[in-house]
Amino acid sequence: MAKQLSGAGLRGQVAGKTALSTVGIAGSGLTYRGYDIKDLADNCQFEEVAHLILKGHLPNQGELAEYKALLQRQRGLPQALKEVLERIPKDAHPMDVLRTGCSVLGNLETEESFDDQQTITDRMLACFPSIICYWYRFSHDGERIEVETDDDSIGGHFLHMLHGKKPEPLHEQVMHVSLILYAEHEFNASTFTARVCASTLSDMHSCVTGAIGSLRGPLHGGANEAAMDMIEKFSSPDDAEKQMMGMLERKEKIMGFGHAVYSDNDPRNDIIKKWSKELSEQVGNENLYAISERCEAVMWREKKLFCNADFFHASAYNFMGIPTKLFTPIFVMSRLTGWAAHVMEQRADNRIIRPSAEYTGEELRQVPAIDAR
Amino acid sequence: MAKQLSGAGLRGQVAGKTALSTVGIAGSGLTYRGYDIKDLADNCQFEEVAHLILKGHLPNQGELAEYKALLQRQRGLPQALKEVLERIPKDAHPMDVLRTGCSVLGNLETEESFDDQQTITDRMLACFPSIICYWYRFSHDGERIEVETDDDSIGGHFLHMLHGKKPEPLHEQVMHVSLILYAEHEFNASTFTARVCASTLSDMHSCVTGAIGSLRGPLHGGANEAAMDMIEKFSSPDDAEKQMMGMLERKEKIMGFGHAVYSDNDPRNDIIKKWSKELSEQVGNENLYAISERCEAVMWREKKLFCNADFFHASAYNFMGIPTKLFTPIFVMSRLTGWAAHVMEQRADNRIIRPSAEYTGEELRQVPAIDAR
Ligand SMILES: CC(C)(COP(=O)(O)OP(=O)(O)OC[C@H]1O[C@@H](n2cnc3c(N)ncnc32)[C@H](O)[C@@H]1OP(=O)(O)O)[C@@H](O)C(=O)NCCC(=O)NCCS
Ligand SMILES: CC(C)(COP(=O)(O)OP(=O)(O)OC[C@H]1O[C@@H](n2cnc3c(N)ncnc32)[C@H](O)[C@@H]1OP(=O)(O)O)[C@@H](O)C(=O)NCCC(=O)NCCS
Repeated sequence: MAKQLSGAGLRGQVAGKTALSTVGIAGSGLTYRGYDIKDLADNCQFEEVAHLILKGHLPNQGELAEYKALLQRQRGLPQALKEVLERIPKDAHPMDVLRTGCSVLGNLETEESFDDQQTITDRMLACFPSIICYWYRFSHDGERIEVETDDDSIGGHFLHMLHGKKPEPLHEQVMHVSLILYAEHEFNASTFTARVCASTLSDMHSCVTGAIGSLRGPLHGGANEAAMDMIEKFSSPDDAEKQMMGMLERKEKIMGFGHAVYSDNDPRNDIIKKWSKELSEQVGNENLYAISERCEAVMWREKKLFCNADFFHASAYNFMGIPTKLFTPIFVMSRLTGWAAHVMEQRADNRIIRPSAEYTGEELRQVPAIDAR
Repeated sequence: MAKQLSGAGLRGQVAGKTALSTVGIAGSGLTYRGYDIKDLADNCQFEEVAHLILKGHLPNQGELAEYKALLQRQRGLPQALKEVLERIPKDAHPMDVLRTGCSVLGNLETEESFDDQQTITDRMLACFPSIICYWYRFSHDGERIEVETDDDSIGGHFLHMLHGKKPEPLHEQVMHVSLILYAEHEFNASTFTARVCASTLSDMHSCVTGAIGSLRGPLHGGANEAAMDMIEKFSSPDDAEKQMMGMLERKEKIMGFGHAVYSDNDPRNDIIKKWSKELSEQVGNENLYAISERCEAVMWREKKLFCNADFFHASAYNFMGIPTKLFTPIFVMSRLTGWAAHVMEQRADNRIIRPSAEYTGEELRQVPAIDAR
């Protein structure tokens, strides 16, 4: 299932070791610490998976309750951070806001020692939804929302703050699945950013801030937003087909398709697609789902390109009433677990990551006097 | 001169192409676009070198004047950014402040298109010294300083804001040299962070914010601060020798020594060392210089380890009255040129940087029911 590539983009080149996940290893598309992604998505809450990734094992009932309670207690934001968020304009990109929020947190609650790495990570897991919703609701609705709620889960907390009311059970459930699917993915670009940063022995906030910046890119996490922007322009499945054929002819890249490692299937797609369908029926918007399915069929027929994790996430989030520009921040709320676990792994057996470059520039020459230039 | 290594930390593995610099290629230790670092440090101002790195050629008299004027005009900070900086406490690390300042700037003056990449970079070059000094003087002295000065150079602007008076010519000159030495260094960890981020097609502020986070680490830019912390504890050259021997016996890492690529000499060291000596004579603090020299001799005698760019920077900055915790932010003010130029290069011929990992974790297993854990 893994593509065999080398050369550009370090594709297929081993940049380190990990015990956290496998991507595209034969027999199983994606595993976290040995558990198949489908098994986890069918049977776990996101907090169980975060516990698995960060602490090495799936929690029992008591450990899970304790971990959720700990995360619940840490949803509040320092006053100085709220004041910073209030100064970021409405038209800012929420990924820039989250990158900034994480960086500010690093000033207010600095990781003084690597002994604190788990505590620092838990704090971020608990308060990232608060950061994003506090800014969003203040800048868009002029409201200073209460971020310390008693919602049971991270996904529920997020939806509650966003919509100002407790989410329906189906939506909280889909958030669990979505956050599980996005939690970890080996040496993808944002995780690799975090590991390069960690390899200088920098602090956790720096690593995560950098990773957020990488995830923002449209070739990476930004793809779910780009996919939404595209599908909402299509009026019907037939219209989608016609327009996509045009895009392919113009050799445009179609966001939400293809993958750097998987070659014929992204194991996360089947899972989120099923939930997107269920949501479409619940909200009675079967057109958007049908459009998405047609896109999938056209891309496979024309280019043998398959939906990656991002494509059906777009419609699923849309059905839950989540504004498009908050899609990638949700990815952050989840992938944070993978980033932090990779930082911990890098620290435990570190050498500074410092590759070489092929030089393509000028030969040695002399600096001419400024008057002679 | 380049070490032959492979394996951990991608050492010696080619991760891309660059026309910007050579590090450790036979015949010349370090070149920027073909010019030897010594030639540049002896004959140029920092703004000439920034122009060279970013725009591809050394400016003539007219181009240099124009570029300096453009940078001068952009020293001011948006009010919202000042208000954010005023909320960051005095005990924050200035690198965290700068990382945050850059991220906030990305919210207020977002790079909307890659066509703006040079403009965005110039703006950062012009205002990073303002960010750092505005926060420093406000948090430490309670003063809201004027950041829009008419100083001729970036280094002069920085020293002026920091000390509240125009710098002496020797100090402005040393700042030129220092900023030139730090401007660019191929695929070092922070630059590589910026390139990984750029490879997702993310924005310039994200790339630079991430790079600042990596440079913060003590194995990278943070080394000049760590070197200062060490040498100021030594009372004399003999004391330095005695204490270093103890550190080596305890197998402690000594900051400011060794390098991932150079094997027997860092070409930047001779240059900054000479200026550190001149400053030591000017301020009449020959003890600190003599201590530094002894450290160099001991490390070479005992471990064949040599001073890297950071070691004599510590004493040089100290002689100019720069607080130790501002050392690495100066590195940022300079390396920003290299980072931005690498981002531009990555964008011009991009493939997402996504390496592989060697898996060392659990075999495939089944999720046990929560009651059975
Ligand atoms: C994910 C991605 C960055 C992987 O990049 P990669 O490993 O460098 O690219 P691949 O080797 O898979 O690409 C092979 C070919 O398929 C094309 N291709 C890949 N994804 C494509 C897409 N989504 N739409 C159109 N063409 C695509 C490439 O352009 C390339 O064509 P070429 O050989 O003519 O240049 C790439 O598939 C992509 O850009 N997808 C869209 C963005 C996205 O959804 N990202 C989220 C990933 S989870
Ligand atoms: C720069 C640095 C990170 C390069 O790392 P690297 O390429 O992974 O390390 P090297 O291959 O040079 O190290 C080889 C050996 O020398 C030792 N060594 C390297 N630098 C050392 C130092 N500054 N003090 C003591 N020992 C050192 C290493 O511990 C290693 O020993 P080992 O083989 O017994 O483990 C490393 O030299 C270092 O940590 N230096 C101090 C930090 C610093 O000054 N950084 C600024 C760089 S511009």
